[in-house]
Amino acid sequence: MLRVGYPETLLPELSSEFPAGVELVCLPEQPDRDVDIDVWVPDAYPSRAVRTWPHLRGVRLVLALVAGTEWLPGLVGPHVTVCNAQGAHNISTAEWTIAVILAMLKNFPLFFDIQQSGRWKRRFELPAHYAKITGDTRPLYPPVMIEELTGKTVLLAGYGSIGKDIERMLAPFRVEVLRVARNARSEPRVHAVADLDALIPQAHVIVLIVPSTAETRWLIDAPQLALMRHGALLVNAARGPVVNTDALVAALQAGRIRAALDVTDPEPLPEGHPLWSCPNLFITPHVGGSSPQFSPNAVRIAAGELRRYMNGEPLRNAVQVGN
Amino acid sequence: MLRVGYPETLLPELSSEFPAGVELVCLPEQPDRDVDIDVWVPDAYPSRAVRTWPHLRGVRLVLALVAGTEWLPGLVGPHVTVCNAQGAHNISTAEWTIAVILAMLKNFPLFFDIQQSGRWKRRFELPAHYAKITGDTRPLYPPVMIEELTGKTVLLAGYGSIGKDIERMLAPFRVEVLRVARNARSEPRVHAVADLDALIPQAHVIVLIVPSTAETRWLIDAPQLALMRHGALLVNAARGPVVNTDALVAALQAGRIRAALDVTDPEPLPEGHPLWSCPNLFITPHVGGSSPQFSPNAVRIAAGELRRYMNGEPLRNAVQVGN
Repeated sequence: MLRVGYPETLLPELSSEFPAGVELVCLPEQPDRDVDIDVWVPDAYPSRAVRTWPHLRGVRLVLALVAGTEWLPGLVGPHVTVCNAQGAHNISTAEWTIAVILAMLKNFPLFFDIQQSGRWKRRFELPAHYAKITGDTRPLYPPVMIEELTGKTVLLAGYGSIGKDIERMLAPFRVEVLRVARNARSEPRVHAVADLDALIPQAHVIVLIVPSTAETRWLIDAPQLALMRHGALLVNAARGPVVNTDALVAALQAGRIRAALDVTDPEPLPEGHPLWSCPNLFITPHVGGSSPQFSPNAVRIAAGELRRYMNGEPLRNAVQVGN
Repeated sequence: MLRVGYPETLLPELSSEFPAGVELVCLPEQPDRDVDIDVWVPDAYPSRAVRTWPHLRGVRLVLALVAGTEWLPGLVGPHVTVCNAQGAHNISTAEWTIAVILAMLKNFPLFFDIQQSGRWKRRFELPAHYAKITGDTRPLYPPVMIEELTGKTVLLAGYGSIGKDIERMLAPFRVEVLRVARNARSEPRVHAVADLDALIPQAHVIVLIVPSTAETRWLIDAPQLALMRHGALLVNAARGPVVNTDALVAALQAGRIRAALDVTDPEPLPEGHPLWSCPNLFITPHVGGSSPQFSPNAVRIAAGELRRYMNGEPLRNAVQVGN
């Protein structure tokens, strides 16, 4: 009987999703002796999973509960098949993206500051960093500081399943969507990465939702930031290394662009890092994919993959096929 | 020749929208002598417009540049026809509504606090007011604190043109929309106000987008707040008096519900008012309808109404017909 190890952090009711005919083995973060299993469902937090791995023997298949599995092949080696939980994060990540785009265009960070001050203000001297971005120094801010998403141009760098969900949620805002992916294709028109620099100056909002690979490292570097429109918004919903952090800090400090980041490089962002005090920036601590619906979704995806593995059917989410 | 008075705050290029064959009169906030005009386009800010009015003579038609004109009939009296600029605020107000719903479901106020602290945190003791709302005291917040809008139930109290735009922007999130308006109708199903109390317990989010009238005063009072689901979100995109402020303060202080307000009663909210320090609340200072597109939209709507008035055609946006 196939032995499937799952983390003790998984809610007990979710383990019932796994197919009948397997033996489920609940794994503590650091088992006190080695455990023989065939299939490993690692904890969604890499920091916990890496402490479990050295105690496992016989693993041939890894079913991750997250979409970002760039850390797994290096951990388990080339002989093990690794599947991700692509799709489990889609809705929450796409919603986070729409949420930060709207929050930045509506200047919610400014209104949080005003609320904390406890004083109703509709007109005042603009803080210098807002004035730089808007090019406006009039002391009357509402008509100046609140922008409409409707009618803007949004560049999606990455057009996988999350990118498509983001586009679907952008539809009512009648934006022009420019799509960039590794390979160009048509219907809808998707540009190749080679066209990125030519498209950047057209965009009011640039959303990064590419996988983290050697090719996407520093996809947005100083030249790309320099090509962005004045005041344009960069949204990183992908991974920190997709952006050159030093170049981003320089562009933000110069008051040239705005950014919203769910991921950073380094991550976690250390105390005192210059990003923390950059103007026109909103940071969330890698929570975009989080959701109460996440674990049920991810376990359902992993269980489906396990069923296919047991039936000898092709796997759908293999990011590495063991050799 | 018809004399049309417009405020000096209007951008000069916008006055070219008015039809040919009228005499345009630029009005300072407080003219130093009385001015004879037939048509008055008041400043969008009531506080300025009320200072102009006593200096005007002969006004028969008022073309407001805003949708909310509840203050105008009392100012100009029953003999004057008053038209609003219904539609000019629609996109910006609907976008503000989607923005605050997403920002509150994603707990952006918490992440602004974290960013200001300059320390990357994904797990910590939940502040008591968040714990009360989520019913969760686990120190690991991302799965707990980030909710998906997708699949939730949204009650729209008010189903005019802005309500319909909000519904259009909610569509990709596959929410169940409950609609309430003065009069019940079908296709789509719109409930009468009398059904409001029966519908409130079903909603995760309640959006107020009714006009401010004697009938909608305190539409949301203590009994309605008590009917809301624990942790549900009340969004006021209408006018402050639609909600009983004291009852709202009590419900927020009890940690029972969440709220996002663009309008308050009293407004402006005075320093030291208890709303400022209520938990699970986001306040913006009446900026939802603001947009760089607003003035051009509003002037175009007013100019269209003026053209109809000059041609003896029926007016479209009359909120009071002068007797």
